[in-house]
Amino acid sequence: MENVAVIAFDADDTLWSNEPYFRAVEDKFCVLLEDYMPMHSISRELLKIEIANLDRYGYGIKSFMLSMIEAAIVISEGTIPIKVINQILELGKEMLDHDVVLLDGVEDVLSALQGKYRLVLATKGDLLDQQRKLDKSGLSKYFHHIEIMSEKNEKEYSKILKHMDIDAHQFAMVGNSLKSDVLPVLNLGGYGFHIPFHAIWEMEKVDVNITHEKFRELATIKDLLSII
Amino acid sequence: MENVAVIAFDADDTLWSNEPYFRAVEDKFCVLLEDYMPMHSISRELLKIEIANLDRYGYGIKSFMLSMIEAAIVISEGTIPIKVINQILELGKEMLDHDVVLLDGVEDVLSALQGKYRLVLATKGDLLDQQRKLDKSGLSKYFHHIEIMSEKNEKEYSKILKHMDIDAHQFAMVGNSLKSDVLPVLNLGGYGFHIPFHAIWEMEKVDVNITHEKFRELATIKDLLSII
Repeated sequence: MENVAVIAFDADDTLWSNEPYFRAVEDKFCVLLEDYMPMHSISRELLKIEIANLDRYGYGIKSFMLSMIEAAIVISEGTIPIKVINQILELGKEMLDHDVVLLDGVEDVLSALQGKYRLVLATKGDLLDQQRKLDKSGLSKYFHHIEIMSEKNEKEYSKILKHMDIDAHQFAMVGNSLKSDVLPVLNLGGYGFHIPFHAIWEMEKVDVNITHEKFRELATIKDLLSII
Repeated sequence: MENVAVIAFDADDTLWSNEPYFRAVEDKFCVLLEDYMPMHSISRELLKIEIANLDRYGYGIKSFMLSMIEAAIVISEGTIPIKVINQILELGKEMLDHDVVLLDGVEDVLSALQGKYRLVLATKGDLLDQQRKLDKSGLSKYFHHIEIMSEKNEKEYSKILKHMDIDAHQFAMVGNSLKSDVLPVLNLGGYGFHIPFHAIWEMEKVDVNITHEKFRELATIKDLLSII
């Protein structure tokens, strides 16, 4: 660990709560459409459309809004009242306006690490939305810069390393997704620290048991201070 | 000019055609809604909604799609048939899938400058969409990296300078928007090169006459080679 120069943090559900807002809006979406299908079928249809749109739309709230609108049309077979489309737009705008709620211990940890490591925010969300959340969070001062990634895969992490002019063994990534935050970084030769969050999007779920000298599973972000 | 180390290029309507696709889709949108209002009033309502949404949605095709859907509901006073909403989604997806058409001389100029300067793409579009266009364009190999900016203002350009560890006088920006590509960079002390494009979004229009030693207006990107 003595070589680590850069620690990158995932943002959503690592620094602040995010997935619960998506879940809450999805629940409201299901209620709006309950005349057409059972709730769990609505969720399944929505997920199917989100996955089909992922290459075109990418991640974030605007993509979610567009997929909800499409799903409402598909699920209702084109009979959804136009006021429901408006309600979906309103739900999305509320999400975009939401307050940022920091997870426990985040600020203490960033404050303790700052100066000792170069701290970076590495996220695949929507730039404007992530920028806004970072501003609202009051955490900007701890970070050297934000890396916005179109996808959190080995290719994109390699770009970050090249961009920051460091080798993989100098890089540690902290996040709540094994698939996006941990596995690609371990594969490149960096450190991957996993902090599970109680809610995780279907598409981020992976079923693996990781045993790797550069991997740690942490109960909370505060445990980071005892290992580095 | 001998100090310039980094040349940043705007992407849309500087390297490749973009605004004409928005215009073409806006024309189709007006036709979809022609029963409700005269065409020019539809455009004006759409622009009003786009501006109102700009802080929340930012720039790019997904934002444009969401604003078109909202405008369709507003313009029709909630009576728009649901199939028109679907047609708007289809129009947006076609935009996202569009081929990238390079503007004349772009590749020759980038190829001539590469190696002599660090070339950067600086854009305020949607990351995923800009990344996709860069991949499709075949121009990736000329650029050191992409800077995705939430807004092209002095604050965001300052971040780029800090991030690239250069002073403003070592920085030149090339683009089709005086407001976004030229004025903030001149204000910081950098070079601003303007290449007008025949189509420009209402929100990018400014009415200024610039006289500044670090400013040049170019007829085409090829003129860049004769001044640096």
